[in-house]
Amino acid sequence: MFERIGLISKPGDAAVADTLTRLIEFLRRRRAGVVLDGTSAAYLPGGGESVATREELGDRCDLAIVIGGDGTFLSAARSLAGFEVALLGINLGRLGFLADVMPDEIVDRVGEILRGRFDEERRLMIEADVERGEGVVASFDALNEVTVHKAELARLLEFETYIEGRLVYRQRSDGLIVSTPTGSTAYALSGGGPILHPELDAIVLVPICPHALGSRPLVVNAASEIEIRMEPAPNPLAHLTCDGQSSMELAPGDRIRVRRKSSSVRLIHPPGHDHYATLRAKLHWEHKP
Amino acid sequence: MFERIGLISKPGDAAVADTLTRLIEFLRRRRAGVVLDGTSAAYLPGGGESVATREELGDRCDLAIVIGGDGTFLSAARSLAGFEVALLGINLGRLGFLADVMPDEIVDRVGEILRGRFDEERRLMIEADVERGEGVVASFDALNEVTVHKAELARLLEFETYIEGRLVYRQRSDGLIVSTPTGSTAYALSGGGPILHPELDAIVLVPICPHALGSRPLVVNAASEIEIRMEPAPNPLAHLTCDGQSSMELAPGDRIRVRRKSSSVRLIHPPGHDHYATLRAKLHWEHKP
Amino acid sequence: MFERIGLISKPGDAAVADTLTRLIEFLRRRRAGVVLDGTSAAYLPGGGESVATREELGDRCDLAIVIGGDGTFLSAARSLAGFEVALLGINLGRLGFLADVMPDEIVDRVGEILRGRFDEERRLMIEADVERGEGVVASFDALNEVTVHKAELARLLEFETYIEGRLVYRQRSDGLIVSTPTGSTAYALSGGGPILHPELDAIVLVPICPHALGSRPLVVNAASEIEIRMEPAPNPLAHLTCDGQSSMELAPGDRIRVRRKSSSVRLIHPPGHDHYATLRAKLHWEHKP
Amino acid sequence: MFERIGLISKPGDAAVADTLTRLIEFLRRRRAGVVLDGTSAAYLPGGGESVATREELGDRCDLAIVIGGDGTFLSAARSLAGFEVALLGINLGRLGFLADVMPDEIVDRVGEILRGRFDEERRLMIEADVERGEGVVASFDALNEVTVHKAELARLLEFETYIEGRLVYRQRSDGLIVSTPTGSTAYALSGGGPILHPELDAIVLVPICPHALGSRPLVVNAASEIEIRMEPAPNPLAHLTCDGQSSMELAPGDRIRVRRKSSSVRLIHPPGHDHYATLRAKLHWEHKP
Repeated sequence: MFERIGLISKPGDAAVADTLTRLIEFLRRRRAGVVLDGTSAAYLPGGGESVATREELGDRCDLAIVIGGDGTFLSAARSLAGFEVALLGINLGRLGFLADVMPDEIVDRVGEILRGRFDEERRLMIEADVERGEGVVASFDALNEVTVHKAELARLLEFETYIEGRLVYRQRSDGLIVSTPTGSTAYALSGGGPILHPELDAIVLVPICPHALGSRPLVVNAASEIEIRMEPAPNPLAHLTCDGQSSMELAPGDRIRVRRKSSSVRLIHPPGHDHYATLRAKLHWEHKP
Repeated sequence: MFERIGLISKPGDAAVADTLTRLIEFLRRRRAGVVLDGTSAAYLPGGGESVATREELGDRCDLAIVIGGDGTFLSAARSLAGFEVALLGINLGRLGFLADVMPDEIVDRVGEILRGRFDEERRLMIEADVERGEGVVASFDALNEVTVHKAELARLLEFETYIEGRLVYRQRSDGLIVSTPTGSTAYALSGGGPILHPELDAIVLVPICPHALGSRPLVVNAASEIEIRMEPAPNPLAHLTCDGQSSMELAPGDRIRVRRKSSSVRLIHPPGHDHYATLRAKLHWEHKP
Repeated sequence: MFERIGLISKPGDAAVADTLTRLIEFLRRRRAGVVLDGTSAAYLPGGGESVATREELGDRCDLAIVIGGDGTFLSAARSLAGFEVALLGINLGRLGFLADVMPDEIVDRVGEILRGRFDEERRLMIEADVERGEGVVASFDALNEVTVHKAELARLLEFETYIEGRLVYRQRSDGLIVSTPTGSTAYALSGGGPILHPELDAIVLVPICPHALGSRPLVVNAASEIEIRMEPAPNPLAHLTCDGQSSMELAPGDRIRVRRKSSSVRLIHPPGHDHYATLRAKLHWEHKP
Repeated sequence: MFERIGLISKPGDAAVADTLTRLIEFLRRRRAGVVLDGTSAAYLPGGGESVATREELGDRCDLAIVIGGDGTFLSAARSLAGFEVALLGINLGRLGFLADVMPDEIVDRVGEILRGRFDEERRLMIEADVERGEGVVASFDALNEVTVHKAELARLLEFETYIEGRLVYRQRSDGLIVSTPTGSTAYALSGGGPILHPELDAIVLVPICPHALGSRPLVVNAASEIEIRMEPAPNPLAHLTCDGQSSMELAPGDRIRVRRKSSSVRLIHPPGHDHYATLRAKLHWEHKP
């Protein structure tokens, strides 16, 4: 099934090297091709494996295994957006929504997956263009969410949101989260948003601390184009942040246009993956009578 | 476009008769066929119009105009589910999400619609089967929501929810709302649910006063089969209610199976209908600087 | 310190008899006087202990030990309101906010308490009079909360709330919870209310699924008189329920007047009791890095 | 009653000058002493009134009239904390919770107040000390709230909260709002907090977008000392902001100690002031049947 495996690691985590070593050893025994990203290679001086940029890795591999946590997985997913490579996440201790293979399960789980026994999900990604005047000044990808938020407390942000060209509301708030289903269990959930089934073809808009109490999360078709227009007047400092990782400062009057990416993430789980079981464990839904 | 018009009225409202009279007069001038439901006929003794059951009306008309409010509209939609008839709502004073023609706009708006100038939306409906032992003891349709809820305060309900055969959670709460996009601005919103775009192909599950604070609204594909299993042990009295209108008492161990109906509602709006404008007005999203 | 101990038990729980037997044996060794309520006596046929009504027990004892859970404790607290007796709760398995001695800690914890080493809290109680026409038709006590709630789903309740004679709001909702600090971690929390420190001299009003999204929990001085006026018109069936245990049907136009009771509960904890630790454990505040 | 009136104005608002002129004219006719703050004086070149710093004004006047909105009122209240001067707010258009005299009511309302007909409330203020190592590096006053919040999105803040020296929780979130009753209708409300009666002797802690879904607003006695300990490790950039107006950058390991100020604000309202009426108007509690 998967024959050429790329390995992408979280930087600066002492637990990575051991997991990485065991994983490479296992993959070699299975005679799979192995390609390391630069961070993985740095953990293994003199390792003798092929090393590549993330983009080369996306091009040459059919499976990328991400060693870290949900954060590393998000970063890898953005790098590999547009490549056909599938992604599998190994977490380093704490169960994640995306990285759901525990380090001590590597041999069993990766073994099954290489034998073709796995579950595959398509997770949609979104992209955001920041328009200023006549042009686009920056573009971002996100697997979790695109957030427009204030950077100082002194004043609320004020902006208008349009869906498919129609005004939804003019809002005063700390900001707005535009989240994918994948992101609906992350920051959007802390902001009061609903949980979207991971493969639902929808996007949710979650206002952050809105001034109007009737401002509620809004779930729209993922094909909808969403536009956020920052007020033109002198604004408090506003930022746009994607997946809590990449960020830029916005200017008054900027327009942020968010839409679904044409490519999606092929997320691999061990067979029998149960998203609701993860939710029950992480959100304390379990009821012990 | 529409040639045979059925009229369905809210019972016992003094404002209906006048609106109904003006509407019939207008339709006659436009040479449209008119069929009254029993309630409408009762407002017009000796009116000389054709009278029919709601089902006959659904069969014979291509447009049903509902005079009342969102409640009357919900009832009419359930009666007419399965017929190809389109529905238009005239409200009696307070702007509704479904009944959005004001009485004083009748001539203009209905005129436009009869000339073929209107917006049409497809609104999904859901159906609920109540299974007891080996059989189905009752079935219900809903345009807004199916709610399982306790009927006494003495104890919380306890039940399990399954989606596509997978356990989501075992929950203790006052109940659970299974809502369509149409219902997401009704009871589900009061319960803390998100707003779903009216044509999104999704269903939202909203727990009512759940004991576990991590129990959050869950949005799933409308094609998903949802099953609620009441605990088998002696339960507090539980009810199932559809659209806040039709209801039955549940027994311990009952299983409620909810799925999207194969037929949907053809909802007619005057041209230029703006759902977000209605939301802004009704939920006080308008911000006056 | 405490010389005459009353024992009040949860009915119909197989775990009670053993705990009760061990507790009586321990108290006898400590030469404390023991008085059983009828339920406790029923677990111990031929036990030879003094048996009394709850009221007699409240009159004759200086400490009542409640064996069961928070529910049994609430019931005992209402029975003993007005007596000077202190209350201690022993839970039967699941940590409670009120019953916080585990069965296997009885010897140690009750021993310390009898030696005068304990923490004591004053928990306020509230009382509700139901006024109809010129008179009061019923009165209730509550340690957790007084709830006015609908008993059918068909229509929302409509009522007015007054504080100190001033109109707060006219509300359409499923009901209203008037909660003490003790009740703020119970039903009121599920309804979206804040957590009140147990000894705060305040009461919180929590609307249940209110139609108006701006209807938010309201915290007022415990000395405030709160009045709920049910609408006079034909109302959907409404109930008043206290502590989720005692209940009555309301009539249209009923006025429910809620105020702090002049007497409060003397709640005894083992020394070093930490309310926040209980909150962290029960509400999953613990963050494991 | 009030004989020496200080006037404090919002800077840079074209509507101030006219209101100020009319107010001074009216006060002169009533033979009241008038003292202007610097901002007020700047609107009236050559006005001939006595000009003073805010502190001198607090010392010399028995009533300060604040012309602006709730924001200007907050700033004035912090400047005048510790003086016995009473405060009255005149808003410039939009009804405020603090500034509740409309410009066109000045003659009537201020006239009544000067004749001794007014309502007076005591509003508690809080103060925050920022401790670093052994010392206090900054101190702030607030009438609404003290907020600790992140200044970048990249990572959640992590901190511990203690009340009266006891650990409440270790929290990961966007921040924490420590709000007075006055502030409970401002930012804390947007963050999901309850509404506290203005004269309740309590403080509410509202977590901003907390990671743990069970993290709920907490209402404690205003006499409680609240301590927030920022994690010592390299932290994302955190700020402390008071009343959304004065702000500083925090360092890792900083401890913020919040307590009630010994002095409170004497807030003057026209007679018959109805706080609930303001809430109904501003939060859309009004229900139009």
